[in-house]
Parts: sequence; C-alpha cells; structure tokens
Amino acid sequence: MKEYCFGIDIGGTTVKCGLFNVKGDILEKWEIPTRTENNGVNILPDVAATIDAKIQEKGIARDTIAGVGVGIPGPVNEEGAVICAVNLHWGYVELEKELEKLTGLTVKAGNDANVAALGEMWKGGGAGYHNVVMVTLGTGVGGGIIVNGKIVTGTHGAGGEIGHVHVEDDEHESCNCGNQGCLEQYASATGIVRLANRMLAATDKPSVLRNEEVTAKSVFDAVKAGDELAMEVAEKFGKYLGTALAVVAGVVDPEVYVIGGGVSKAGKIILDYIEKYYKKYVFQGSRDCAFALAELGNDAGICGAAKLVLG
Amino acid sequence: MKEYCFGIDIGGTTVKCGLFNVKGDILEKWEIPTRTENNGVNILPDVAATIDAKIQEKGIARDTIAGVGVGIPGPVNEEGAVICAVNLHWGYVELEKELEKLTGLTVKAGNDANVAALGEMWKGGGAGYHNVVMVTLGTGVGGGIIVNGKIVTGTHGAGGEIGHVHVEDDEHESCNCGNQGCLEQYASATGIVRLANRMLAATDKPSVLRNEEVTAKSVFDAVKAGDELAMEVAEKFGKYLGTALAVVAGVVDPEVYVIGGGVSKAGKIILDYIEKYYKKYVFQGSRDCAFALAELGNDAGICGAAKLVLG
Repeated sequence: MKEYCFGIDIGGTTVKCGLFNVKGDILEKWEIPTRTENNGVNILPDVAATIDAKIQEKGIARDTIAGVGVGIPGPVNEEGAVICAVNLHWGYVELEKELEKLTGLTVKAGNDANVAALGEMWKGGGAGYHNVVMVTLGTGVGGGIIVNGKIVTGTHGAGGEIGHVHVEDDEHESCNCGNQGCLEQYASATGIVRLANRMLAATDKPSVLRNEEVTAKSVFDAVKAGDELAMEVAEKFGKYLGTALAVVAGVVDPEVYVIGGGVSKAGKIILDYIEKYYKKYVFQGSRDCAFALAELGNDAGICGAAKLVLG
Repeated sequence: MKEYCFGIDIGGTTVKCGLFNVKGDILEKWEIPTRTENNGVNILPDVAATIDAKIQEKGIARDTIAGVGVGIPGPVNEEGAVICAVNLHWGYVELEKELEKLTGLTVKAGNDANVAALGEMWKGGGAGYHNVVMVTLGTGVGGGIIVNGKIVTGTHGAGGEIGHVHVEDDEHESCNCGNQGCLEQYASATGIVRLANRMLAATDKPSVLRNEEVTAKSVFDAVKAGDELAMEVAEKFGKYLGTALAVVAGVVDPEVYVIGGGVSKAGKIILDYIEKYYKKYVFQGSRDCAFALAELGNDAGICGAAKLVLG
C-alpha cells in the first residue's frame, strides 16, 4: 500500500521539498539550497540525500512511497529528461533516470510552470476543473496548460510558453528570449514597470508613481487609489494579457484561467483588467469561462510535483 | 472480430460517406444530399438509411462493424451532443445517442475541422506525427488541434477555433462571428480577396489583378508570375497566419502544421509565406517544426471520422 510521496520544486536558489500523504495533505515542508556550481552536478545528489534523510527521520518504509515528483525551471521531454535549465546551470540531464538511480524510487519530472498549473488544478484556484490555463506573472511570464487533467508538454517541452507569444509589432527592445514584442515584456512584474516608466516619460500627467520607486505593486496600489496614469498602465497590461488569453482560448478552450505569481498579489483587480479585454476579443463560444487567482503561492510547485507522481 | 467501419462527414449540402476496413483503407465512397429543411430532422435518419442500405448491399454482418464516426460543422461536446450547427439548421442534437438508436451501431461524433485534422494525422499531411495543428483555409478558417494523438475538443467544443483568434486591432468590418480583427478576415479565401481589393484600391500600382476577377487562386497565380502587388497581399496573409501559428506554438508546441482547404491548392508557396513570419515570431524552443500541405482533400472528413471510431 502506497501511503506517501515527495513533491520537489527545484529553483535557482532553493529546492523546496514536501512530504505528502497520498490523499494530498502536506505532512512536512522544508528547503535546501540549490548548489548550481560545477554545472549543478550536486543538485540531484542533494535532493536524493534530503529525501533519504526525511525517510530515515520519519521511519517511513520505502515500499509505502509512491514516488518523487520534481518540477524544473526548463523544458522536460516525454522521457523525463531536461533539455536545458539555465538557472540550474544544467544542459541535458536525464533527470528521471538519474534520480531514480539515486533514490531507488519512481520519479516523475515536469517543467515548473506546468507543474504549478497541475498543483493549482489539484488543490488551488483551479480546483474542480480539468481544463486549466495557468499564467504566472513574476519576473517573467510562465504558463501551464492542462487539457483533460493532463499537462500539455509540447513537442519540444515548450507547451504553455505563453510568456513568449508575440503581442506587439512595434517593439524595439528585445525580450530575454531574443524576440521582440513578447507578452512577457508587458505583463510580467518587470514588464509592468517598463510600461509605467515609458508612460511616465511620455507625459507630464501627475501621478503618485512619480514620487516613489515604480514596482508592479506600486502601480496596482496607485490604481486602487484612483491614479489616472497608473490606470492607463493597467489598461495596457490588461489589453496585452487579455488579448493573448483570448487567443489561447481559440486553441484549447479552457474552463478556467488561474493567474498567479507576484503580480497576482494585487488581487482581484488584475482579473478585472484582464477579463475586460478577454471578453472583448474572445470567440463567442469560449466567452463563458472563469478567471481565478492562484491560491497555493509558493506551495504550487511541490503540490503539482506530488500530483505528477500520484497521477 | 471487427472488420469494417463507416466514416460520415455531414456538410451543409451533402453528406459524404465512406466504408472502411479497420486497417483504414477506403472500400467505397458515396454521397447523399443533406436535407436541412424542418430543422434538419431528416439528416440523421437519412444517414442511418444509407448506412443500412450499404450493409445490405455488401452483405456485411453487423457484428463485424466497429462503428460509425461522424464529423459535424459545429461544436460537439464530450457526450457526443452537437451544441448547434447553423449550416444543418440544427440546435442542440444528441447526435451519438440518436444515431446509435437509429443504426444499432457505436457512434462517435466530432467537429468537422477537428475530425479532418485527425484524418490528416492518420493518413495525410500529418502522417507519422502525434502533435498536429491543422488549419483549413476555405471560405472561413477552421482549425483542429491534436495533442498526443487526441483531438482537443475544448470546454465548449471550441478547441481549435483559430479562425477567430484576434490578430488585428485596426479593423472596422465585422467577422461573421461578430468580432473584429479575426484571423479569418485575412487568411480565408474570402479574406485574401478582401486584402487584395483593399490594396488595389489604396494604390495605383499596376497589377494583373486589375484585369481579372480577384480570387485567392488568382492572387497566388499572380504571386507566382512575380506580380508585385500580389506579393504584398501574400506577405500580409503570411504575416497574419504565421504570427497566429507562432502564438498557437506557445500554447501546444506541435510537431507539424498541416495547411488545407481551397487556398492550399496554391501549393508550397503559401507555406513559404506562412513560415517566414512563423519563424520570425515563434519562441525559439518551438522553431524546429514542420509545415505540410494537407493531402486528403475532400476525404479528410470521412477518414478522420472513421479514425474517431477506430480510436
């Protein structure tokens, strides 16, 4: 009888770890540092060691463990190999195979944004749905697509890479990906700051944003206070993201969009700006769908990873 | 032992029918008219009657028939019910249930664009692939998305409705769907004519298109003859469609795009215009994928319908 599983979320600075029972309750959470030096060769041995230590500490019988789910900041192919993960200093790593050898447990790996989407579908803002699009608005824009309860990995592990869909022809600065006019350049935390600074520079309109450091948070705080220029920034943000999600609807026609990441801490107001343009541009047949804020915060990754292995 | 199945493609004027063996060979093809009068109440009884006649004619034992697959010009939900099909004068019709009652055979139904995509994946331009995006450029623009060999139906049956993704803010004419700036307004046969007429009206530039009726075919014939204005029309067509497909890549990251419908008869030249902009705007990770012309023509529907029931 399987009773436990591990959910592991490997990020560029820390590895978040969770011990779950098979019902999905988090029994324990902890972190270890991500040792990225030497092309990150220590990362998987460190993960195996911390899992082993937890098994010892808890006196868990190995044959009661369903396995280990792992989220990775990079594309993961159908064979569970990581193509590359810049933030871990990894090139091609046969993650599932290597970690299975190190732990003696079943391992399932997925891209972190996809895994977070699975977590939110399981126990968060997308609970009760099986067709979910999750958008993570952080330093960048990540995405995860779930169709009939399964992650859409994509041929090159690039399924759900909606941060890099093209939304603006008139852009002369480059995105981190090398293209110009990506959604990420307007809808990420960094992108919102960029939009705001551009608009502040373009007019003399008074704004509370002129008196403080401009962040995604300060922009939406100003929106809530009725600041006109901040509201124009929010309109632009909503137009880019809402229009892009309307296009996503024309591809997978989901039940719910779950919006997470640091920007989503501004709350329901961001959904209002996104929905306004989504409703304007979406095909009528897909108009009736839900928008929700992510609920799991930093736990989305470990929850989704656990769900990967629980199936 | 199952030996046979039927693939049925119900269109607004004719019902295309095919008798297949389970290996997928078409044994026989025929058509019957689509009787749309009286809210199309005769359509399913007519289909059942023609299937029954073929069974009698061929002396096929009923228990050797795997079932009947049906493609419909409208959204079909997970329960095999049609939400509405304007061209058949249908509202909500429980297609699978009703046709099973009429025929005594297993019935599987799907949207015609999705079913055509399945057909092309099975035996046409997408053969050998499991992650396929099919785009049909006819009077309108239809789409079908296949992920891991399965049609993405979508929550409201609107998966793959890429003809109605928003691609142009500066559009003042309405699409048939009621929105403005849909892909269909620029990339369908009708859309290409509209683009050409607009450009002919906007300049005095000489063009062979001024001497003849403008059709999608005449535009691409002129492109092949080196007509400068026609080439500008083709660039616009390629930019709208290529950019839209680059966005589709950011959602499902397919292996191959299959382009069909009347416009695709212009041949490989349309792929060149599409790929040019696709490659420009797509996320690097999805850049390496194939573009192919559809190969099954009018048989895509009956083939995909047969595949629906063969699984």
